[in-house]
Amino acid sequence: MDTAIPNWLKKRAELTPDRTGLIFGEDTYSFSEMFEHSVLAAGRLETIGAKEGVRVAVLLSNTPDSVFILHALQMLGSEIVILNTRLAAGEIDWQIRDCEARLLVVEQRFAETAAAARAMGGGSITLVVSEKLNEMPSDAAPHLQEEYKLGQVSTIMYTSGTTGNPKGVLQTYGNHWWSACGSALNLGIHDNDKWLCAVPIFHISGYSILMRSLIYGIGVDLHAHFDATNAVNSIKQKGITIMSAVAAMLSQIMDELGENSFPASFRCMLLGGGPAPLPLLEHCRSKQIPVYQTYGMTETSSQFATLAPEYSILKLGSAGKALFPNQIRVIREDGLAAGAKMEGEILVKGPNVTPGYYNRPDETEAKMEEGWLHTGDIGYLDSDGFLFVLDRRSDLIISGGENIYPAEIESVLFSHPSIADAGVAGIDDSKWGRVPAAFIVKKEGALLSEEDVIAYCKNRLAKYKVPKLVFFMETLPRNAAKKLVRRELRESSKGGEGPL
Amino acid sequence: MDTAIPNWLKKRAELTPDRTGLIFGEDTYSFSEMFEHSVLAAGRLETIGAKEGVRVAVLLSNTPDSVFILHALQMLGSEIVILNTRLAAGEIDWQIRDCEARLLVVEQRFAETAAAARAMGGGSITLVVSEKLNEMPSDAAPHLQEEYKLGQVSTIMYTSGTTGNPKGVLQTYGNHWWSACGSALNLGIHDNDKWLCAVPIFHISGYSILMRSLIYGIGVDLHAHFDATNAVNSIKQKGITIMSAVAAMLSQIMDELGENSFPASFRCMLLGGGPAPLPLLEHCRSKQIPVYQTYGMTETSSQFATLAPEYSILKLGSAGKALFPNQIRVIREDGLAAGAKMEGEILVKGPNVTPGYYNRPDETEAKMEEGWLHTGDIGYLDSDGFLFVLDRRSDLIISGGENIYPAEIESVLFSHPSIADAGVAGIDDSKWGRVPAAFIVKKEGALLSEEDVIAYCKNRLAKYKVPKLVFFMETLPRNAAKKLVRRELRESSKGGEGPL
Repeated sequence: MDTAIPNWLKKRAELTPDRTGLIFGEDTYSFSEMFEHSVLAAGRLETIGAKEGVRVAVLLSNTPDSVFILHALQMLGSEIVILNTRLAAGEIDWQIRDCEARLLVVEQRFAETAAAARAMGGGSITLVVSEKLNEMPSDAAPHLQEEYKLGQVSTIMYTSGTTGNPKGVLQTYGNHWWSACGSALNLGIHDNDKWLCAVPIFHISGYSILMRSLIYGIGVDLHAHFDATNAVNSIKQKGITIMSAVAAMLSQIMDELGENSFPASFRCMLLGGGPAPLPLLEHCRSKQIPVYQTYGMTETSSQFATLAPEYSILKLGSAGKALFPNQIRVIREDGLAAGAKMEGEILVKGPNVTPGYYNRPDETEAKMEEGWLHTGDIGYLDSDGFLFVLDRRSDLIISGGENIYPAEIESVLFSHPSIADAGVAGIDDSKWGRVPAAFIVKKEGALLSEEDVIAYCKNRLAKYKVPKLVFFMETLPRNAAKKLVRRELRESSKGGEGPL
Repeated sequence: MDTAIPNWLKKRAELTPDRTGLIFGEDTYSFSEMFEHSVLAAGRLETIGAKEGVRVAVLLSNTPDSVFILHALQMLGSEIVILNTRLAAGEIDWQIRDCEARLLVVEQRFAETAAAARAMGGGSITLVVSEKLNEMPSDAAPHLQEEYKLGQVSTIMYTSGTTGNPKGVLQTYGNHWWSACGSALNLGIHDNDKWLCAVPIFHISGYSILMRSLIYGIGVDLHAHFDATNAVNSIKQKGITIMSAVAAMLSQIMDELGENSFPASFRCMLLGGGPAPLPLLEHCRSKQIPVYQTYGMTETSSQFATLAPEYSILKLGSAGKALFPNQIRVIREDGLAAGAKMEGEILVKGPNVTPGYYNRPDETEAKMEEGWLHTGDIGYLDSDGFLFVLDRRSDLIISGGENIYPAEIESVLFSHPSIADAGVAGIDDSKWGRVPAAFIVKKEGALLSEEDVIAYCKNRLAKYKVPKLVFFMETLPRNAAKKLVRRELRESSKGGEGPL
């Protein structure tokens, strides 16, 4: 029988009604206020068709209203398709059609893009502007789920793969629950905890903070976007104890901090998105800022392995060990277990791992094996069992915390009439960690400038996916099987080959 | 699919090998040492037949070796029947035959009683003295469960009901897991936590502390038995942050404490076994000792509802609210939900609730209804949703934390040739909270003294179940259906009727 536990926000409002659950600038909301706002939102969303079994896509940025809408949809039992707000219209169109969403709830600022997407898809989806939702009458007693079944899908987030189109990662109520519990068993739970969320809530990194808030009963200080000055001020003035960040954010925070440090109550900088450079870690250590480096992904509903601060220098570059409910295995190309320090593909297993991809039985089957998910990431376990991630899945580019898949950009480049061959690789960038660069072989006689390529991509891709640099090449490095060797592309960008 | 998570002790030894997991007097054991000891024990137990699918009964008191044996059996996947070490031979005989255990592991001190029990049962069970286990060779590589399936039964603990024989409560790995998580979400988890366990590990109160230790990675200071002086010394000197107790223990601790108080790092006195008296709570408050009053039972794998300290005086007598994963309902005699402040039977639901009783499909079905367990306890929810327990299930007597069922003592009394009618009820006792008293109607002309009755019971019952007082009566209070009205028995013990 599927385990059922009480509706999280309702239960939290019953247990600790007066505790602060959400902070946004000067505004604070207790859990009972959050529940009231979310019930109102649920009543309105139900009126326009949201309910269990109906998929609702959202384009929402970090605001309290977004949080209430997400909680409302969770309580109604709708599957929430949480779209990246930076997507271009064509990408939105593709995802909402792929997931067969019936409703699309968007903030006014995204309404134009959403309308363009809807126009492409034939207009069968109902488009709702979230700000207008607040003006609608609310059903007095929406049909809230009294219990959440842990096996039921709660959210869907799209990720791109090495090949083909983006896939909707299914995340169950149980995935989110176990993620929160695994994190708590690793980081502890203190009465006074307050989590700074300056990562997007449409990402699992931000969304998982909202879930932890309900499950632990702790406050979230939500920032509309990351700004180092605001982050430092919050930590100093609002009693923040934990923050989620990527290396690029932490680096800006350290610059902002200057000669100062954090209050002693700040107890955890949870660092995702790849290993942090040694000077940054040493700088944090000198300021007594405990950095927990983690490994996780949309498919694991956030944090999966974590390196305790006492090991951050000793095991430099490691993402630590799998959290208590989780397991990691590294396999060689022949499928056998890799020995200590032997490179191979990273497999993960745990109750926070996705049951699969929406409507992709073949790809799900190809990636899941007796509960083990093939991440596509390459790494090794050292002799003490610490995980080292060498390369994110097939050249995934992590740019300021966003995942960028070269294949997705390449398919846009290939559609250009003047391009004969194209490859994309991440190159180092002091601000974002990495940014995508395009490597292009022009068709004979074609006229094509860097600006042309960038403009072409801008119309078809979210801004952060648009190549920042374009290199024109004679040929692209391909292996015997004609597979692009992206590592060599990266190398060639550093060498003398440069733009032609 | 049944959720599977890694072997708890093994995982804990991998994650935090050097952290102290167990303290016993001057001895300390790190998690990696605990794992080594437990693997040795597992090798020996496997040699004598313990494995998945084999039920192993144990008579073990609070010692490190007991802890290693319990962990060893858990890792082997044996169902562990954890017997109360105070049971009389006849009671042990009944329980080991009922659960069809194949092995009985007992400490030397219980060997004689165990042998007597075995003799009654026909001798089909293998009896092993735990101290001799240590002299045996150990299989170098026992077959440990790499993963625990949450739906699998891990332990069985016997409880008596209002009628009939004791029943084996099934507790799955998942029940223990969820109990630990529910408790953590209520009490928090701090890096420096150390839990004082002076309650028996054969009870769910003590056993659940061992589980939390593995799952949270915190140390347990294990006491052989409760002694107020030792408890206070531990709290003062060993950095104890949490202790499980019942009111009788807490009262002795407060006496022992005198003018002193606890270190500020002591953060939780988890109080089970019924509501605490106001003067005791006020005394604790004056010393800044935070008391968390709880409601729980063997069937809920320990803590189920808890009252936060800030409400302990305001909601005097309440056991608080159901923990995050848990739900409570109070129903009237007609089965409908009782309104606020309306008395009725308490029903509980949650992933820490037992799947049922061993080999008792009828009783399981009678007590379980769509995941809701009928506790038999009487209580109400106030208008703020706080639970008040009025009477434990059908006159259950809680004496110093032990559960005593009047029906069990009555059936012994009825077997005496000189007794015509008998009833048992709990009467107040300054040391134990309550103790059992016998109310007896002699057969005409029979000669029977209080001493005779007590001696008769001593041979047939665990010591704590033997009536401390005997009242001889003309008749016993019975209702229209001839059911004994135990509440009136209690009243009559206070009045002038006294012993004849």
